[in-house]
Amino acid sequence: MKNIKVIAFDGDDTLWVNEPYYQETETQFCNLLTAYLPEEEIRKVLFQTEIENLSLYGYGAKGFTLSMMETALKISENRLEPAVLQEIIRLGKTLLDKPIELLDGVQSVLASLQNRYELVLATKGDLLDQERKLFKSGLNPFFHHIEIMSNKKEDDYEKLLHHLDIEPEEFLMVGNSLPSDIIPVVKLGGFGIHVPYHTTWQHEEVARHNLDTKYYREIEELSEIPELLSHE
Amino acid sequence: MKNIKVIAFDGDDTLWVNEPYYQETETQFCNLLTAYLPEEEIRKVLFQTEIENLSLYGYGAKGFTLSMMETALKISENRLEPAVLQEIIRLGKTLLDKPIELLDGVQSVLASLQNRYELVLATKGDLLDQERKLFKSGLNPFFHHIEIMSNKKEDDYEKLLHHLDIEPEEFLMVGNSLPSDIIPVVKLGGFGIHVPYHTTWQHEEVARHNLDTKYYREIEELSEIPELLSHE
Repeated sequence: MKNIKVIAFDGDDTLWVNEPYYQETETQFCNLLTAYLPEEEIRKVLFQTEIENLSLYGYGAKGFTLSMMETALKISENRLEPAVLQEIIRLGKTLLDKPIELLDGVQSVLASLQNRYELVLATKGDLLDQERKLFKSGLNPFFHHIEIMSNKKEDDYEKLLHHLDIEPEEFLMVGNSLPSDIIPVVKLGGFGIHVPYHTTWQHEEVARHNLDTKYYREIEELSEIPELLSHE
Repeated sequence: MKNIKVIAFDGDDTLWVNEPYYQETETQFCNLLTAYLPEEEIRKVLFQTEIENLSLYGYGAKGFTLSMMETALKISENRLEPAVLQEIIRLGKTLLDKPIELLDGVQSVLASLQNRYELVLATKGDLLDQERKLFKSGLNPFFHHIEIMSNKKEDDYEKLLHHLDIEPEEFLMVGNSLPSDIIPVVKLGGFGIHVPYHTTWQHEEVARHNLDTKYYREIEELSEIPELLSHE
């Protein structure tokens, strides 16, 4: 990792809390529909609906809200009280309006790295929602560049590297998702540091890959990064 | 306009058809609710709901769909058939999946300008939706840079100019919306070419501003741009 010039950080569940808010919303959503199906079944239908809609809606709270509406109509076979749908709209708005809670050590890690590296935020989701999260986080001054991405596949990272005008071996991505933050970057020839979060959306879970530890590390906390890099 | 280095184009209703699709969707939406209110009243409530939600949802088809749902629930005082809501979800998906229809002369204008200027696409709306439109348009190869913006106010353009590393007087914005494409750019010291489209969302309409024609021109068709610039 000694040629690294740019360190990119994922936002949701890497720098700030996200997935617990979605899970809390999902639980409230299930509670509205227990007359129709057991909670586990509702979760399954919701997940399936989200995945079916992903290519059209993309990631983020608005698509999630639309998928909750569709799931509620599906599960109730259109026998739903309209007030329940009103409540789902409200749940979606509350999710969009959540405060930002930074994860432990975020500010000090960014502060300690910003003089040696160019720092980038590389996050996916709804454009306005991610901009609002960044604004609320107060972390904007640490970042040289903000990249809000509709997806995080190899070709998305290729575009980012091209934009940053760097080679893959000059790029390190830090994030909580193996399939979104680590695997595509390592496949391109870059480096990844995986910081697992206690809660992960099942779409972001993968069986462990045999990634070469020359290109990939797993750490428990962001605060381990400066020392890890200084030993390279 | 003789120092211009970068020409940025708006997408929706400047390069390709957009607003007619929204209006078509809105008419279909109104037809679902005529039992509750006259069409004109429904349109008013929908517009008011969209504006109320704009700061939370931002621009684009997903927010529009959520606002249609909210409007339907509001207008029917929650006495709505759930099947109507299912139909609204379908209308929103159809809107997201519309084909791209380029406006007259787009390709030849971009082709004739691309060797003399850096061309940028500066468009607002949902990230994935705008990326999909650009992909379907086939116009990607003309653009040096793509900027999908959550809003088009003065500070959004300031960030874009900073990112492009140019001065305002080196920047020309071409678009169909005075408040989004022209006024903020001219206020910053850049240039604007307004190409009105036959249909405009009422949120984008403004009383004519007294813009100095040194910085602002109105044309009828994109194809007038190359000649207009060659006379500068």
